[in-house]
Amino acid sequence: MDYQEVEGAREYVARLEHGQDWRAQIEAFAAEERIDAAFFMGIGAVSDATLKFYDQEQQEYDTLCFDEHFEMTPAIGNISWLGDERFAHTHVVLSREDGSTIAGHLDTATTFAGELYVREFEATLERYHDEETDLDLWPL
Amino acid sequence: MDYQEVEGAREYVARLEHGQDWRAQIEAFAAEERIDAAFFMGIGAVSDATLKFYDQEQQEYDTLCFDEHFEMTPAIGNISWLGDERFAHTHVVLSREDGSTIAGHLDTATTFAGELYVREFEATLERYHDEETDLDLWPL
Amino acid sequence: MDYQEVEGAREYVARLEHGQDWRAQIEAFAAEERIDAAFFMGIGAVSDATLKFYDQEQQEYDTLCFDEHFEMTPAIGNISWLGDERFAHTHVVLSREDGSTIAGHLDTATTFAGELYVREFEATLERYHDEETDLDLWPL
Repeated sequence: MDYQEVEGAREYVARLEHGQDWRAQIEAFAAEERIDAAFFMGIGAVSDATLKFYDQEQQEYDTLCFDEHFEMTPAIGNISWLGDERFAHTHVVLSREDGSTIAGHLDTATTFAGELYVREFEATLERYHDEETDLDLWPL
Repeated sequence: MDYQEVEGAREYVARLEHGQDWRAQIEAFAAEERIDAAFFMGIGAVSDATLKFYDQEQQEYDTLCFDEHFEMTPAIGNISWLGDERFAHTHVVLSREDGSTIAGHLDTATTFAGELYVREFEATLERYHDEETDLDLWPL
Repeated sequence: MDYQEVEGAREYVARLEHGQDWRAQIEAFAAEERIDAAFFMGIGAVSDATLKFYDQEQQEYDTLCFDEHFEMTPAIGNISWLGDERFAHTHVVLSREDGSTIAGHLDTATTFAGELYVREFEATLERYHDEETDLDLWPL
């Protein structure tokens, strides 16, 4: 396992905005605060969701669209550089009114409500193309 | 997104008590330690669970009761003031012996075993009624 | 609830290695860095998974093997001593290409990709046999 000891930097508590995209809000916040490396956890609810599933054999993303209301239980992710933008890599578990669930890599979701904790690090994490997986990963 | 930079304060590791309610234990701990703002993550198992699902159109909670044994994988949440009490807003994913899952906003669950990390902040988070969602949210 | 205030120590960001076991990597890292108490959160993908479900009545683990590709959404766990080894107690939610999920206590899983945040504490957590549950738990 490749790893890097990091110094903890700023910490934030956030309330996501109703009607706005979940992930785009986190990325806009990261840009505004110039956060170059962070992990976050959050909970909330969304009124739709588009997830992506990475096909490990074809090495490409399939897209799943759900036009339903969900609780977000939880969202876990991190912030790092991907090309010339800050990217919030976000995995979520979503639940329906009967308790049933879906989960995956979050592309977009319209926030109903959301609460987030962000832990920034004194570091710059940057994603580069990884040959083996065809994903953008951190060389640590 | 509304957000607030917070200073990290105390940190705790906890073992939840067998036979006691999952969320009530966290709230009793928060009262005892006078924690006014925190996020937490935990894992464990419960012997039943009552979840709530917020109907975004009717703007009211529906209740789901499950009289089954579950692994808790995970519980993510936060502690803040709601009226005159500390409230542990807790979302959970629960799994059965065949791996199948339910998830949602935790009301009650009888703890079989549980392990928790709590990160307190030098802040006081308080929930107020939000007109748009009819939920109690933080104005940050 | 039994709890212990802990001082935060080192923090790490990690990239799990493709083709290696998810949990074994975390345990090897913990041994290398001499981590005696920590919590972690992570996301990623795996190409198979073996989960364990603790039968609360029989007080024994049942094993579930899944020879499928999954997103890991998320993995939450902690590091502490179990006998003479460091043990990464890890709960995961896994999702398939249609969004459907399984979850539970992770035994083994072959990593496709993985990203982890580890928060170490200035403490030594050690598991001992608990009579009531027949599990190995922390006396705090």
